[in-house]
Amino acid sequence: MNQINFKSAVVLVSGGMDSAVCLAIAKDMGISQINALHLNYAQRTEKKELESFNKLLDFYHIKSKLIVDVSYFAQIGGSSLTDKNIEVPVNQKPGETIPSSYVPFRNANILGIAVAWAETIGADSIFIGANQLDSSGYPDCRQEFYDAYQNVINLGTKPETNIRIVTPLINMSKKDIVLKGHQLGVPFELTWSCYKNSDKACGVCDSCQLRLKGFSEANLIDPIIYNR
Amino acid sequence: MNQINFKSAVVLVSGGMDSAVCLAIAKDMGISQINALHLNYAQRTEKKELESFNKLLDFYHIKSKLIVDVSYFAQIGGSSLTDKNIEVPVNQKPGETIPSSYVPFRNANILGIAVAWAETIGADSIFIGANQLDSSGYPDCRQEFYDAYQNVINLGTKPETNIRIVTPLINMSKKDIVLKGHQLGVPFELTWSCYKNSDKACGVCDSCQLRLKGFSEANLIDPIIYNR
Repeated sequence: MNQINFKSAVVLVSGGMDSAVCLAIAKDMGISQINALHLNYAQRTEKKELESFNKLLDFYHIKSKLIVDVSYFAQIGGSSLTDKNIEVPVNQKPGETIPSSYVPFRNANILGIAVAWAETIGADSIFIGANQLDSSGYPDCRQEFYDAYQNVINLGTKPETNIRIVTPLINMSKKDIVLKGHQLGVPFELTWSCYKNSDKACGVCDSCQLRLKGFSEANLIDPIIYNR
Repeated sequence: MNQINFKSAVVLVSGGMDSAVCLAIAKDMGISQINALHLNYAQRTEKKELESFNKLLDFYHIKSKLIVDVSYFAQIGGSSLTDKNIEVPVNQKPGETIPSSYVPFRNANILGIAVAWAETIGADSIFIGANQLDSSGYPDCRQEFYDAYQNVINLGTKPETNIRIVTPLINMSKKDIVLKGHQLGVPFELTWSCYKNSDKACGVCDSCQLRLKGFSEANLIDPIIYNR
């Protein structure tokens, strides 16, 4: 990541652990104006994630926020996260195949919205907590995808607009992310990563397993409560 | 445009003249499965455009359609098409400056949705009626923008997915578009291009002026009724 002095950042905050660490990194870089963007794409866990989003914003004293309804993903279907006819995958080996929790082209859609908002409010950067090592094989979590999208931004916005995509977690493992968050004082207890929608995290879905593996390898205790 | 034999196309159909000609071209290429995608981004003219969309689908006997609510554009604001605090531009010289009817990064958002749907239903192409000559200076109407987006599709979809963006109108003038549509028997009387929301087209907004200029230069009569 280049050390550019950004003045105003749109930060994608899902409510999960990765986006919380990404937000903490943007704050730690001294960016004066943070604008938090949350996407509601009608996934099973939206209520829990929105709750985490709002708690994180309170924690970091962030006032500028936008919550966008992208429930058209449920309309389009094709993913177990939004389509109730497809089971949530359990014990799928990460990286082996594209998991059924894949929402087609999700990150490109998220970036499109982030750029539209950034251009409107004059933000100069978009922070997204994608990471390619533990990304469950999603094709739109790789750095080359973000490089290609950067080119689209450069060509598709006004000449005077200058927006950079920043992916601070892209080459981190879950262990690295946990350690970085711990170092920056991220309130992990406020985050939600589980793909299932219940009071306690399930501990067995892909997302819970990746998270628990990260904490375990970092020799730290995950402060959220698991249903195990 | 390469002469590839596409089997299933997602065609963007706004209800305007350009998208109607684009649809006619896809039909003329002999593509057996046409899937029509309409975006409702809460613009002033949505009711008229949706009406035109449905009439065009009836005319071409198209059954596969998707209407997506992207009213988040109104939430983000920054455009006279969606923001009621900004006046619709009249008599603005095309190409001189970015007009206030510009919706930030609109075509990237449209393409993102089109790709998500195309990947879900197994379509191999996306037809979009963008054209750069008479495009009012929108930065996301140029071929280089679509080339860059093609690269994002190649990198951001599943390895087995193969989706091509097709922009048959990209280098046409409005005159060319009118002539092509006339040759293919496009029912221009069913289309709607005006930026204002009234029973008859205003004839003075940028979009009406471009359309009328196209018909005039093609020595053809625009069959829709103008309020002049």
